[in-house]
Amino acid sequence: MNQKENLADIVAAVHAEMEPHVGAGSVADYIPALARVDRRQFGLAVATCEGDTATAGAAEVAFSIQSISKVFALTLVLDKIGAALWHRVGREPSGSRFNSIVQLESEKGVPRNPLINAGAMVVTDHLLAGRRPAAAVAEIIDFIRRLADDATVSVDPEVANSEAQTGYRNASLANFLRAYGNLDNPVEDVLKVYFHHCAIAMNCRQLARAALFLANRGTDPIKGVKITTPITSRRINALMMTCGHYDASGEFASRVGLPGKSGVGGGILAIVPRRAAIAVWSPGLNRAGTSMVGALALERLAALTGWSVF
Amino acid sequence: MNQKENLADIVAAVHAEMEPHVGAGSVADYIPALARVDRRQFGLAVATCEGDTATAGAAEVAFSIQSISKVFALTLVLDKIGAALWHRVGREPSGSRFNSIVQLESEKGVPRNPLINAGAMVVTDHLLAGRRPAAAVAEIIDFIRRLADDATVSVDPEVANSEAQTGYRNASLANFLRAYGNLDNPVEDVLKVYFHHCAIAMNCRQLARAALFLANRGTDPIKGVKITTPITSRRINALMMTCGHYDASGEFASRVGLPGKSGVGGGILAIVPRRAAIAVWSPGLNRAGTSMVGALALERLAALTGWSVF
Amino acid sequence: MNQKENLADIVAAVHAEMEPHVGAGSVADYIPALARVDRRQFGLAVATCEGDTATAGAAEVAFSIQSISKVFALTLVLDKIGAALWHRVGREPSGSRFNSIVQLESEKGVPRNPLINAGAMVVTDHLLAGRRPAAAVAEIIDFIRRLADDATVSVDPEVANSEAQTGYRNASLANFLRAYGNLDNPVEDVLKVYFHHCAIAMNCRQLARAALFLANRGTDPIKGVKITTPITSRRINALMMTCGHYDASGEFASRVGLPGKSGVGGGILAIVPRRAAIAVWSPGLNRAGTSMVGALALERLAALTGWSVF
Amino acid sequence: MNQKENLADIVAAVHAEMEPHVGAGSVADYIPALARVDRRQFGLAVATCEGDTATAGAAEVAFSIQSISKVFALTLVLDKIGAALWHRVGREPSGSRFNSIVQLESEKGVPRNPLINAGAMVVTDHLLAGRRPAAAVAEIIDFIRRLADDATVSVDPEVANSEAQTGYRNASLANFLRAYGNLDNPVEDVLKVYFHHCAIAMNCRQLARAALFLANRGTDPIKGVKITTPITSRRINALMMTCGHYDASGEFASRVGLPGKSGVGGGILAIVPRRAAIAVWSPGLNRAGTSMVGALALERLAALTGWSVF
Repeated sequence: MNQKENLADIVAAVHAEMEPHVGAGSVADYIPALARVDRRQFGLAVATCEGDTATAGAAEVAFSIQSISKVFALTLVLDKIGAALWHRVGREPSGSRFNSIVQLESEKGVPRNPLINAGAMVVTDHLLAGRRPAAAVAEIIDFIRRLADDATVSVDPEVANSEAQTGYRNASLANFLRAYGNLDNPVEDVLKVYFHHCAIAMNCRQLARAALFLANRGTDPIKGVKITTPITSRRINALMMTCGHYDASGEFASRVGLPGKSGVGGGILAIVPRRAAIAVWSPGLNRAGTSMVGALALERLAALTGWSVF
Repeated sequence: MNQKENLADIVAAVHAEMEPHVGAGSVADYIPALARVDRRQFGLAVATCEGDTATAGAAEVAFSIQSISKVFALTLVLDKIGAALWHRVGREPSGSRFNSIVQLESEKGVPRNPLINAGAMVVTDHLLAGRRPAAAVAEIIDFIRRLADDATVSVDPEVANSEAQTGYRNASLANFLRAYGNLDNPVEDVLKVYFHHCAIAMNCRQLARAALFLANRGTDPIKGVKITTPITSRRINALMMTCGHYDASGEFASRVGLPGKSGVGGGILAIVPRRAAIAVWSPGLNRAGTSMVGALALERLAALTGWSVF
Repeated sequence: MNQKENLADIVAAVHAEMEPHVGAGSVADYIPALARVDRRQFGLAVATCEGDTATAGAAEVAFSIQSISKVFALTLVLDKIGAALWHRVGREPSGSRFNSIVQLESEKGVPRNPLINAGAMVVTDHLLAGRRPAAAVAEIIDFIRRLADDATVSVDPEVANSEAQTGYRNASLANFLRAYGNLDNPVEDVLKVYFHHCAIAMNCRQLARAALFLANRGTDPIKGVKITTPITSRRINALMMTCGHYDASGEFASRVGLPGKSGVGGGILAIVPRRAAIAVWSPGLNRAGTSMVGALALERLAALTGWSVF
Repeated sequence: MNQKENLADIVAAVHAEMEPHVGAGSVADYIPALARVDRRQFGLAVATCEGDTATAGAAEVAFSIQSISKVFALTLVLDKIGAALWHRVGREPSGSRFNSIVQLESEKGVPRNPLINAGAMVVTDHLLAGRRPAAAVAEIIDFIRRLADDATVSVDPEVANSEAQTGYRNASLANFLRAYGNLDNPVEDVLKVYFHHCAIAMNCRQLARAALFLANRGTDPIKGVKITTPITSRRINALMMTCGHYDASGEFASRVGLPGKSGVGGGILAIVPRRAAIAVWSPGLNRAGTSMVGALALERLAALTGWSVF
């Protein structure tokens, strides 16, 4: 599958196949602003390293990227501080849910990886680096706007506030990290930045475009701008493969065979190394918090394109 | 890196780079017969889908493949019973050591994946399927001989007996599985077959050759014989990527970027989808039970060849 | 409540109160020989330090004492080796079920206390002390016969065999202990002795009589024979109070207020320091494996006598 | 030991025996205001149901009672809402440290018992009951003043603020409880009241006096005022016996044999049912957070008086 006509055909075929499934799963109800989203939506976008884009369905409808933002925050921070990050967060699958606190106690406040909530808070703490929360939020939004080549990407303030008001589980994790000395900035500031970058709204087309550097060894293939090093790009992909879907990462690797990151807003980002970035969105979630139809669409897309890395 | 001259050069270069490191790490001391192996050995073999082989160091010295045998047992059983296996064993990283029993209690006797000890025992139970242990051992040895295209592959009886006499931890796991009804055959029989397939001795050249079907969508590229389906081959690779090194799987994915499986005998098998299978061996282990020099050699080999899937 | 007329009246009253409840709960079904016992039975016996005995119901019907035997094994071993036992087993409540293996992994093979299964196996290992299983079984039976002043107490061979054939969970625990070097004798021998002392059959009258030394600072108040030291007697009572009912020990302390030990055969032993020993039996169990009617009877008996230590 | 001359002699003897030990252990360093307390202090007070008091050492020096306050908060709340409390908190030993969050996740936000931090927060939430924090703090201080018959008992504001500023672990627990719907009041309010009642300062004489109702079936034996019911009094004693010292409760029961509650300020309260209440204080702690010299003094006092309930 090399040509763009084929890609458009495959994307259209996957879209058609998903029709009967759209609406399945349940919407994340612990964030009120997300609970109101209509489940019966599905969007798909593929951006290739050659500069082609194929979309289907609601690919222009913005959604809350939630945990997918962890990938961009991690890229920013790895570029700033490099391997020093790994003193404060691990690189192993947790074998647990996204918000589990159990391992954090037995492992003395060092989160298993930067893609579970606790790990992303440590990343966010590095991003803050003593600044005011607004400065850190601005930096990550600017970064994503540059990556997406689209200045309209922004935070949904209603979602950010909604999380801040009900995010007791995340507040528990952040205080726990701070108790172990693994947050340098005030708990409130870390949570504020964390909730804001999780509340970034993007559509599938923007998201696939923004992540394209991860398919091209760290360099934006369209603009030719280096975003991060090849080795960092590879490591982020490796983390998405082993840890991108919490305690359902193995199933995703088995079914889809691509590095990916899901968000409870129903979006999933997947990277096809050397070829493309893919974004899917459909709000209904499975029990692991991954979009049901999104995962199915990626499985079919990988099967039809032969893009599995395995 | 496409040509065989280059491959031979790279293999030789990696061998040379490893020289100062050989001997590092500690030998698995809980299996007496393994504890006596000289640490100062290193072997490397690459078998490509085109039929080329490049080797360096002690690539012809047989070693105990230990947990690497789980990959072959899994292939055999998936071919026999297919997806029915996943009712009795999961596909997720455990986040725990290879012999941990903790999750097995909270998850009611269903092991996280078939590459940790408990999961491999469930696979072994399927392999037994009511037969005498000798029949099941014979089947898996025959299977590996065919894959390696070498009738000399065999079980090291001293290692098998050594494990049987001191394998209290594995006996604990097997009894636990049986208590939850997740073993159909007698505990003694399952352990006997398990200890025997772990005690298979192979050299790097044989091991790389035997696993080549996993680099070629389930078909042996040299003989053109279908060993398993493309989808099963991909799933085994996915499992090796996410679960192949127990609680150090994330680090291996990050550093090497290839599906792999380590054994406490010091061997590591790695698959380069669509290209090659690699076997390395050096007995000194890191704290996760993976060959220290072996992992380093694979990291360098992946860097020099650009073979990382990420 | 000091006089024996009163005691007989109270025992009769408790018996009458239990009538409508007898038969409630479920019988331990993992030991086939126990699963066949008729649930609709209830026995009660109180033996006082003054030499009085009051009984009601099926106080002369023998039942399998199961885990209650751990108290006698512990007494024997503490008398042999004293505080050295505490290097290999703790004295803390486990907060877990009787057969949990989770803590055993995180605490490196040292059971939390001698009244959970794993801890009782370590006690049994000390009892064996290199002898043949039959010798150790004979010693504990002789000990209990002397305590009960009744040479007819014996092991129910059907129950012992039944446990040996289906005791996979216990075999898992024993192998786990051995893997950590916390069993000196062969696993098979430890399990054999363990299953045999758990299969001792006694009736309520015998059991209350046998444990009377624990109500009298270690000395049999009837024969005037010292069984153990006052301090060991106090410590055994303390263990029964904090750990005697696994993860329902707190509830028992709260409701009954006496040191006690339950067995899945439906028996419960309770000690009234300085006054009496009580044995109740009714086969129906609650979810923690304690006799439902037995616990209720003890609660009422403690309320009517004012015997709670609190 | 019945007469007051003997009691004074024994208290003096215990004080003398402690001399060489005073200063052992380490001071709680996570609360700065506690870390500055001089370790070389020891106080002891016994208040009997007959109205006698015997003291030794620094029995008039006020110290931070910390977790001992949980006993008074629990008494107040059980009197207000009775058994309804047990829907939101258990009565079992946790087998874990005082601030562990692990069980809270697996048991869905229901703390094991009201004497670990999380459980005491649920009790505190009931105490708040929609009021302002100052009202709840005032109520518990008034309650303790009445019990101690001493209007000078008060909160040490420096300690309360110190905990509020560094209590990240407790903030983590409170947010976790709230995430599971097991706190009705705002997290900040619950923590404020919790930190304030833990920061109550009392001396040994006041503390023994205040807890005397627990030795007398719920009624203050000096004033003849009923504080709580006999059954509630017994249950609080049972909880102190099984859960009063976190993961060292079994050892305390074994060595001392009395219901007790320790605080990281170095105080320990112990109840002798039907006889007396005892308070000891010495700031140096063992690894479980219990006063080393305090526990030793109680062990000796129990041995010399024969007051162990076992």
